[in-house]
Amino acid sequence: MMKVWAQVDISAADRERLRRGVEQAGGEWIEGAEIERKGPTIAYGQPPVDLMLRTETLRWIQVDTAGFERYDRDDVREWLRAGGRQMTNSSGVYADPCAEHVVAMIFSLARQLPRAWEIQQGERSWPMMELRAESFLLRGQAAVLLGYGTIAERLVELLTPLGMRLTGYRRRPTGHEPIPMVDAGGVRAACAEADHVINILPASPATEKFCDRAFFQGLRRGSRFYNIGRGKTVDQEALREALVEGPLAAAYLDVTDPEPLPPDHPLWKLPNCLLTPHTAGGHHDERDRHLAHFLDNLGRFQRGEPLRDLILRDRP
Amino acid sequence: MMKVWAQVDISAADRERLRRGVEQAGGEWIEGAEIERKGPTIAYGQPPVDLMLRTETLRWIQVDTAGFERYDRDDVREWLRAGGRQMTNSSGVYADPCAEHVVAMIFSLARQLPRAWEIQQGERSWPMMELRAESFLLRGQAAVLLGYGTIAERLVELLTPLGMRLTGYRRRPTGHEPIPMVDAGGVRAACAEADHVINILPASPATEKFCDRAFFQGLRRGSRFYNIGRGKTVDQEALREALVEGPLAAAYLDVTDPEPLPPDHPLWKLPNCLLTPHTAGGHHDERDRHLAHFLDNLGRFQRGEPLRDLILRDRP
Repeated sequence: MMKVWAQVDISAADRERLRRGVEQAGGEWIEGAEIERKGPTIAYGQPPVDLMLRTETLRWIQVDTAGFERYDRDDVREWLRAGGRQMTNSSGVYADPCAEHVVAMIFSLARQLPRAWEIQQGERSWPMMELRAESFLLRGQAAVLLGYGTIAERLVELLTPLGMRLTGYRRRPTGHEPIPMVDAGGVRAACAEADHVINILPASPATEKFCDRAFFQGLRRGSRFYNIGRGKTVDQEALREALVEGPLAAAYLDVTDPEPLPPDHPLWKLPNCLLTPHTAGGHHDERDRHLAHFLDNLGRFQRGEPLRDLILRDRP
Repeated sequence: MMKVWAQVDISAADRERLRRGVEQAGGEWIEGAEIERKGPTIAYGQPPVDLMLRTETLRWIQVDTAGFERYDRDDVREWLRAGGRQMTNSSGVYADPCAEHVVAMIFSLARQLPRAWEIQQGERSWPMMELRAESFLLRGQAAVLLGYGTIAERLVELLTPLGMRLTGYRRRPTGHEPIPMVDAGGVRAACAEADHVINILPASPATEKFCDRAFFQGLRRGSRFYNIGRGKTVDQEALREALVEGPLAAAYLDVTDPEPLPPDHPLWKLPNCLLTPHTAGGHHDERDRHLAHFLDNLGRFQRGEPLRDLILRDRP
């Protein structure tokens, strides 16, 4: 029996739709004080870690975000492993919008759109030849994807027809990725050759300030840096320096540290640093797609099929 | 013998490179007063129409632009047909940058980049939830491509992995296009269903104000209009009305009528109308790619192979 404990911060209407979806799939809906008594087999949302670890009946937990820092702990991994439990996240919901956001950033810089916007807000001149000469083709250019998960997989699909040279970085390449991969031993050399460095790293002690001063100073002159991962993976003072003194031509950031970025922060003011306020994963039907993603996995769980977006698995 | 008459407005250095390229390919370089006496077989650039029509020795003419309005005349067509001559343009040079420019426009609107950019220039606030809710996924959305040539072909390649529903319009579909096509009888109905209408139409008497008041008023509420074709294909007052009163959510224009668009023109001032100053085809190595495109066709001509980017052919 699928007894579903939903620990979600959503509107009453969305909660009701979720409940109906679970019940239509043949599941039982459990909430409030019933959680410990009724022995849920499935948890969805952001279950508190301590309560989750005490709930021995759980077989599968899906978090309703792409990030899962709070669960990335040795005791959680051990609890999953020892009990043969599965944990998933909602990265499938965010693969499309995050990948599309990166494409928007890369293309808008290549086509000089921010310069054109600035002209439209100001003098309304027509510097056609100047902007044409500053535009560049993406075909043949090299890009490194820092962090290779669901978002990077989708990004590779979107960038493939451009004819760019793509390289991925992850700590433990599987050998099944569709592009050449590097591990920690090769990532700096790959970035040094790249026209575009795309940061999709999650937050963790291992990725904190992954992009430090040495990293930025090792980049190619005139290259571009994008961040849709997490702000804490970047030393922002080193980034600022690389934008002012080189080697970076430009940066496009969707995440910062802290968020919101204070209005007087120097990164706001650099003409070659563009920002979006952590909107990369957003889309107007985000809640619908969360519901669909969870119900799809619920069906897979019921049929004993592999779940999508498994996380915190033991690694070889 | 390949006797090449180059009528090009380029720097002395680029001219010298072109000349060397022609001579390395075994061609003879003809210029100035020699043109009529030496009987060129090939013309490259923008040969004056009258002189071209008098030069009976010509077998192939390549114009160094994508547009070829000045040659689109009955007497030129007849001269080509009667003499078994070929004419090509340089649209292959512009397919990549123009298609990439359209992708930049579509994605930057979908991801709310102009709004974010406006915030960065002004209050530097962090309206994350608002911008996320206004962002939208391109997957599943419908787009119509008005004008189906080299640029549209490349655009289809770039947009294919997005999972959009694409429809093309040309006067005479060949049946070999990779997407469903409509002709004049079906184009308005297709546009009425589209989330994105992408205008790549050339200038000609047949396309003048193709996008008129009835066209814009027939579009879907909340749809988006892009123009990288020619400004004269659009009734700009009707466009302005559609942006202010609906049905258009936004427009992104790279071409206007006239160009430059005067600084006090109302289209500059609409918050949902974005402009670039005719930069869609530009790229920093444009001249290199022109040279490569012409020399590639020169090799094809020499070997008797089909030329790339044939224009003004007799149509069935």
